Amino acid sequence: MKINGKHYRTIWLNDDNCSVCIIDQSRLPHEFVIQTLTDTTTCANTIRHMQVRGAPLIGATGAYGLFLAMQDKNDDAALNRAYDELLNTRPTAVNLRWALEQSYTILRNTPTAQRADTALKIAIRIADEDANNNQMLGRHAAMLFEQLHQHKSPNAPLNILTHCNAGWLATVDWGTALSGVYQFYDQGFPVHVWVDETRPRNQGAALTAWELQQHGIPHTVIPDNAAGHIMQQGLVDCCIVGTDCTTANGDVCNKIGTYEKALCAYDNHIPFYVGAPASSIDWTLQSGRDICIEERNATEVSHIQGKTADGKLITVQLTPDHSPCKNYAFDVTPAKYITGLITERGICFATTEGLRQLFPEKQKDFLHAQSLQRP
Amino acid sequence: MKINGKHYRTIWLNDDNCSVCIIDQSRLPHEFVIQTLTDTTTCANTIRHMQVRGAPLIGATGAYGLFLAMQDKNDDAALNRAYDELLNTRPTAVNLRWALEQSYTILRNTPTAQRADTALKIAIRIADEDANNNQMLGRHAAMLFEQLHQHKSPNAPLNILTHCNAGWLATVDWGTALSGVYQFYDQGFPVHVWVDETRPRNQGAALTAWELQQHGIPHTVIPDNAAGHIMQQGLVDCCIVGTDCTTANGDVCNKIGTYEKALCAYDNHIPFYVGAPASSIDWTLQSGRDICIEERNATEVSHIQGKTADGKLITVQLTPDHSPCKNYAFDVTPAKYITGLITERGICFATTEGLRQLFPEKQKDFLHAQSLQRP
Repeated sequence: MKINGKHYRTIWLNDDNCSVCIIDQSRLPHEFVIQTLTDTTTCANTIRHMQVRGAPLIGATGAYGLFLAMQDKNDDAALNRAYDELLNTRPTAVNLRWALEQSYTILRNTPTAQRADTALKIAIRIADEDANNNQMLGRHAAMLFEQLHQHKSPNAPLNILTHCNAGWLATVDWGTALSGVYQFYDQGFPVHVWVDETRPRNQGAALTAWELQQHGIPHTVIPDNAAGHIMQQGLVDCCIVGTDCTTANGDVCNKIGTYEKALCAYDNHIPFYVGAPASSIDWTLQSGRDICIEERNATEVSHIQGKTADGKLITVQLTPDHSPCKNYAFDVTPAKYITGLITERGICFATTEGLRQLFPEKQKDFLHAQSLQRP
Repeated sequence: MKINGKHYRTIWLNDDNCSVCIIDQSRLPHEFVIQTLTDTTTCANTIRHMQVRGAPLIGATGAYGLFLAMQDKNDDAALNRAYDELLNTRPTAVNLRWALEQSYTILRNTPTAQRADTALKIAIRIADEDANNNQMLGRHAAMLFEQLHQHKSPNAPLNILTHCNAGWLATVDWGTALSGVYQFYDQGFPVHVWVDETRPRNQGAALTAWELQQHGIPHTVIPDNAAGHIMQQGLVDCCIVGTDCTTANGDVCNKIGTYEKALCAYDNHIPFYVGAPASSIDWTLQSGRDICIEERNATEVSHIQGKTADGKLITVQLTPDHSPCKNYAFDVTPAKYITGLITERGICFATTEGLRQLFPEKQKDFLHAQSLQRP
């Protein structure tokens, strides 16, 4: 997608062919900074400190992290150490484990001398696949938006509400939830996006608003608290969000607050869709109850970063000294509140049967996981 | 209630007997500042800029504002001008109109020379009544909490979730939603309060957390997005919020986001109560659909105030330059999601019948309003 008219991905191999570039998302929307990564620990820290974030992008970053490791030391111990270091950065994102396992499984059977080259090829493939899959996913979403828009007058914008950032900044390119919004807009349809600011880290206000603005898409930022009200007022035609982990029964673990928005949509008979690429689906998890929810540092609640009147980025404290805060990063939206899952292969009901029809080759993983469950 | 161990109300007559003191709530929790008001316009501005806020406190402040006006000029024109100026500061708070009308009705039939004295007596009576009613309301709430606590082990805290600030800072004293929490705690019961930060103005993080801390009540601040998750996890026994306007059918207009929390409570079978003093009930409104929702300045969403590392209060920008924001101040929670309304006369169902049983003398207002409705 584009920044100031120039095409970017969120992660790419640097021109020197041995380092990796990322957009430092912790400074957006106020500063656009590209950071160069040359070692695994720095790469892991960009995930840990959310300079890169978004489940699909974390996956690709993990794969590039193994490439950086194998350039430095390519023996089994180094491979294992890098795998662990990268995996431990964010426990909930299923794409990270998925990408690291894809790479690790091949690398441990690759002669050490070829490991760096192979790791790079895998990282590039994972990144390309992510971009392509998201583009496909977006085609299905755009067709859905077109159907929904047929119920409106032709010039009235389709009002889409989204939570957090599941746009191109959350992926390698295109985005999951927002890929369809971009394609729908590029086809000439009128669209307006309600952007939940998405406390505590404000990925909606900071990232979604910024990338929509760069693409010229009309949008309005609202506090998370206002989503229910605007749905009551008939100002939302459709909700679409991303997912950090989709379980085999269609439950969706996504940014904290997603569950609340799904309840609001359900109460107001508004369709609630999830952009769920195959890489986000964990077939070994029967339901959302099996997910361990990441708790992050309480300072993300007590403090917030913003831009001062003279353009400096600073952090200010919001809560009283000594008042404790809790920071659950994700919640689980039960499948019953989800109208459909939008994948690169099409749209399905948020049910085991719906997912298995789209991904029949996963039948084996699913049955194997079931056999391991306690009776 | 107490600040650093000393008893305060939120508004009081100054020792000079001709000016009025308030706690400037726009600087809390970081700075405790008392402001002296000597004229109506300054008084109206403290309401408009939310240096005083909370429906019951706004009502008392309005009454004191008429006193300040009558000290300056006490003719009918001055009375009308002051009434209009004060009423126009916040359109949604029913208590403001209620308090101003109480005072205005008496003052216009009072000889001009006595108007200042009379206005002061009315303001003091309204303030005292508010404090007493809230204390009564809190007794009913504390008894309810005691019943709920019987289902828990004796040492386990009752976990109460609240939204925005309906504590003593929102009233003259005691609070509405929190009055019962204070009394329950003072009776020696273990309690823990989950405090929604309540974007965009963060009255939860800034005011509720601060006043609970001053009283020594265990509490934890969470982003508004986390309320649903902690309810799913069984970490909330009861929700209680305030109301800016309760309609005759039991619908509750309160701080934006209240509706979302009520849906979460309903989905998780958690009782959801509203501290609704009689002064908040508008018998002329049949339902929440009749309420005009105040829209406030979008900068309250795009910017936030906080404390820097060196203790300065500053405002920082959260959203990208030029991304539009919307700032709906309130939403309406349909009565069906409310377990009960807690008033100074007891607890009732959130229905017309429930309210009329507690307030039979309001039958006439209600029927009169009904007769004015279109068929």
